[in-house]
Amino acid sequence: MAYIRNAWYVAMWSQDLNSQPQNRLILNEPIVLFRDGRGNIAALDDRCPHRQAPLHLGKVCESGTLQCGYHGLEFDKSGACVRNPHGNGSIPKAMRVKSYPVKEMHSLVWIWMGEREPDYSAIPDLSMLDNALPEHVTRRDFLSMNANYELVVNNLLDLSHVAFLHKGVLGNEDSTGAQVKVTQEGDNVTVSRWMPGVAAPRLFDMLFQRDGRDVDMWAEITWIPPGSLLNDTGVTGIGASREAGSGIIGLHLLTPETEQSTLYHFAAVRTNPRSFPPDIETQIMRDLSDLRRKAFVEEDMPMIEAQQRMLGLGNGEREPVLLEVDGGAARMRRILQQRIKSETASGISAP
Amino acid sequence: MAYIRNAWYVAMWSQDLNSQPQNRLILNEPIVLFRDGRGNIAALDDRCPHRQAPLHLGKVCESGTLQCGYHGLEFDKSGACVRNPHGNGSIPKAMRVKSYPVKEMHSLVWIWMGEREPDYSAIPDLSMLDNALPEHVTRRDFLSMNANYELVVNNLLDLSHVAFLHKGVLGNEDSTGAQVKVTQEGDNVTVSRWMPGVAAPRLFDMLFQRDGRDVDMWAEITWIPPGSLLNDTGVTGIGASREAGSGIIGLHLLTPETEQSTLYHFAAVRTNPRSFPPDIETQIMRDLSDLRRKAFVEEDMPMIEAQQRMLGLGNGEREPVLLEVDGGAARMRRILQQRIKSETASGISAP
Amino acid sequence: MAYIRNAWYVAMWSQDLNSQPQNRLILNEPIVLFRDGRGNIAALDDRCPHRQAPLHLGKVCESGTLQCGYHGLEFDKSGACVRNPHGNGSIPKAMRVKSYPVKEMHSLVWIWMGEREPDYSAIPDLSMLDNALPEHVTRRDFLSMNANYELVVNNLLDLSHVAFLHKGVLGNEDSTGAQVKVTQEGDNVTVSRWMPGVAAPRLFDMLFQRDGRDVDMWAEITWIPPGSLLNDTGVTGIGASREAGSGIIGLHLLTPETEQSTLYHFAAVRTNPRSFPPDIETQIMRDLSDLRRKAFVEEDMPMIEAQQRMLGLGNGEREPVLLEVDGGAARMRRILQQRIKSETASGISAP
Repeated sequence: MAYIRNAWYVAMWSQDLNSQPQNRLILNEPIVLFRDGRGNIAALDDRCPHRQAPLHLGKVCESGTLQCGYHGLEFDKSGACVRNPHGNGSIPKAMRVKSYPVKEMHSLVWIWMGEREPDYSAIPDLSMLDNALPEHVTRRDFLSMNANYELVVNNLLDLSHVAFLHKGVLGNEDSTGAQVKVTQEGDNVTVSRWMPGVAAPRLFDMLFQRDGRDVDMWAEITWIPPGSLLNDTGVTGIGASREAGSGIIGLHLLTPETEQSTLYHFAAVRTNPRSFPPDIETQIMRDLSDLRRKAFVEEDMPMIEAQQRMLGLGNGEREPVLLEVDGGAARMRRILQQRIKSETASGISAP
Repeated sequence: MAYIRNAWYVAMWSQDLNSQPQNRLILNEPIVLFRDGRGNIAALDDRCPHRQAPLHLGKVCESGTLQCGYHGLEFDKSGACVRNPHGNGSIPKAMRVKSYPVKEMHSLVWIWMGEREPDYSAIPDLSMLDNALPEHVTRRDFLSMNANYELVVNNLLDLSHVAFLHKGVLGNEDSTGAQVKVTQEGDNVTVSRWMPGVAAPRLFDMLFQRDGRDVDMWAEITWIPPGSLLNDTGVTGIGASREAGSGIIGLHLLTPETEQSTLYHFAAVRTNPRSFPPDIETQIMRDLSDLRRKAFVEEDMPMIEAQQRMLGLGNGEREPVLLEVDGGAARMRRILQQRIKSETASGISAP
Repeated sequence: MAYIRNAWYVAMWSQDLNSQPQNRLILNEPIVLFRDGRGNIAALDDRCPHRQAPLHLGKVCESGTLQCGYHGLEFDKSGACVRNPHGNGSIPKAMRVKSYPVKEMHSLVWIWMGEREPDYSAIPDLSMLDNALPEHVTRRDFLSMNANYELVVNNLLDLSHVAFLHKGVLGNEDSTGAQVKVTQEGDNVTVSRWMPGVAAPRLFDMLFQRDGRDVDMWAEITWIPPGSLLNDTGVTGIGASREAGSGIIGLHLLTPETEQSTLYHFAAVRTNPRSFPPDIETQIMRDLSDLRRKAFVEEDMPMIEAQQRMLGLGNGEREPVLLEVDGGAARMRRILQQRIKSETASGISAP
């Protein structure tokens, strides 16, 4: 399988990159990320050209260069070797590593994996992370799944699964009759579900405090290629407006490590938050963070990783038999394949 | 390597299939087994056609259908999708899974893996399991070995190994001079050994209580293709008839999971059991169950798995150099290859 | 990748081969080593020809033969089967295993992996192990690295890495300006470094007791193909002769298990040892043994294994960009490739 290469992928949360260099595997390429002395971020190929030692096992020098931990060669943010500490110190011309465009935005570190000029306007707008009060944002969290990232996108674009896989917590069977609407804006695909008169799942009951009374519920999830998904979801009183209700925007940021492994960064921002006393507020945000992580790790991950293993079996590579609810996922797949094809045809993005 | 496909394989002991669906990998095919509300058994392809989620992660509904745990599709015993809980509930024609013939018999669940009509008369006669008093049957046990099942059949058809690998417990060097007789009836192969005047191995001393006096010993093992072996073995007084002695029929039921992994179900039924006080009886059967499992897990398994690893090394795929005692195993191999070849030629059994 | 085959490799320390047979994987061949009743050593293919059971799971009989643990066949040191305990005891002609030339020398067991006649004069001279007082030799130790052995040879032939990877312990940045001299004698390559006026690294301070004063330091490492390296290294007072100083000869003996795994035997002999009271002596040798093992296991091994993993990634197989300090390693590589090519051309060494 190929990937869209001329695109921004999330490498990590900004808060997770400090004085130590960090490594990531992205689109099967080993990458080292570090901050120079001034806090600026750089991303380089994680292999020292000398003998392929991983640069992330080294350290950042006071001058802001990254020093290989094996023989002490130093590289600057452009990937140029700027110091050979040995003998007469001469530096062969070929002693340089590939540098990747990076951008710190919306409290995330984004990396551009293609050969074209990076298009900074293509970074998804996650400004809700910047604009919300800190107490209205969950933990900035991440995990790694042993599955192709398309399986995770499918999981998210078809939220009908919450009624079964996350029964009682994020959804329930009341909502299976929901009208599903698929819309497209450019290459972004949105799947909307409106679920009137349903029992409030635990997560929403927590935010909206209905004490078991039924609610109207919505979920509008948008996929922004290649790997960002924003899920505006919440509940309101029966027959009331969405503005009278309360919910979250769930952020799901997927980065392929390999064809069978995906980095998954996530957080949620409360929308139209009801106000609670500060200690209740703190408790709610902690519960919200825990509940989401638990659902992803204990319910989605085992299912998606099991799907991946099934695909690996003998005659496992079958076309899915799609349901009405899969309209969004089908559209996503077409867009993905088309963009990969167009990159391949242009011949400028081969790894 | 190929397998005989038009044949019955053991999927599990009946007692191990209750209200929860269970999964097995058989001939490299993922299978889910479950009981409907009435206790009837079904076996389906373990992959939901929608998105290949493993059906065994779902549950059995009150109506007896198997519900996928991901999006809630329900399948009946024939593999037909009978409910789509989403939207208007329409079910695509292609939404069905392969169903495998199954038969519960002799306290085992048997599965038919081929494309021909199942031949119910081909289930091996293990009625000794049904007819024996419960107190004369060991635990119904199983394990999984990381080795091709032919290596396990070889182990069993050439019982000369018990003198070395299970020294003192199931055999000893006294018996190495045994006359070995190989006979064939249809495709069943029997290897018989008569070992007069030998020290009683621990297992038989336990059943026959000779307190260390020598015995005459026999072992008659029959292979019923593809994976069932019955070993009638026991001891008697020197010069006495077999009827005056006591022993067991050891049942060894082998099911290939993959080319390098085998499900191994086992139990033993006492033959001509001497009568003991009930508490001694209970203790003997517990010891017998433990001793056999211990011998299989701690002695056979490491040796057979090490053989498998050796076969995986560079120039490891060598023809075995056979001994006189290997007559049965050689015949087994010919029959196996012939039946696989005939299935392949008929063209109706390809997976 | 190919190996030099007509050469001696270290199979183990003599002290580690006692009454139990031991197994090794060398150049991807499974080998069993054992001592007969008289203490003589033999090395055989570790696969019983009968059914490929690993012979090392058997035992050495009183007669000095090696008995297979599965069916009891016995083999002598030449690899001939000398006993079949079953039936009439006849032994098929093909029932023999390959025997490898072995030689116990310098407290090591050496094995010859090629098809040519073994050249006993080619065993590297490690007589310093025999001639030193026992209290001047470290533990005879070994470990296994998940990396190709060339990566380990590179590590050793370019000792510039000690200034960074083993900073403070075996080297420091003072020494990076060292003049590096590469010489060759036959196929042996020596890399010499002279480092005047440097802070004494911990290991040498321990042996020479300078209490922090600066020293002149040297390191002369010689590679003897295919896998033996001797590192004569030490310190002396500034401006003083090497004879007035003290150091060690570090022995590094590398044996490829597979293309991605290496057996690494090591020890060190003190040279020109200063005399200490016996209890201090004992403590120093224990510290010296511990310090070296710790440096290899905690510093070299993670780096070298990470290099190996990097080489396994997509476009990882790149030519190294060499520095001035790599002269020795480059020469080593040429010699290795030339000898492998010449063996292949002669056609007598294929496995």
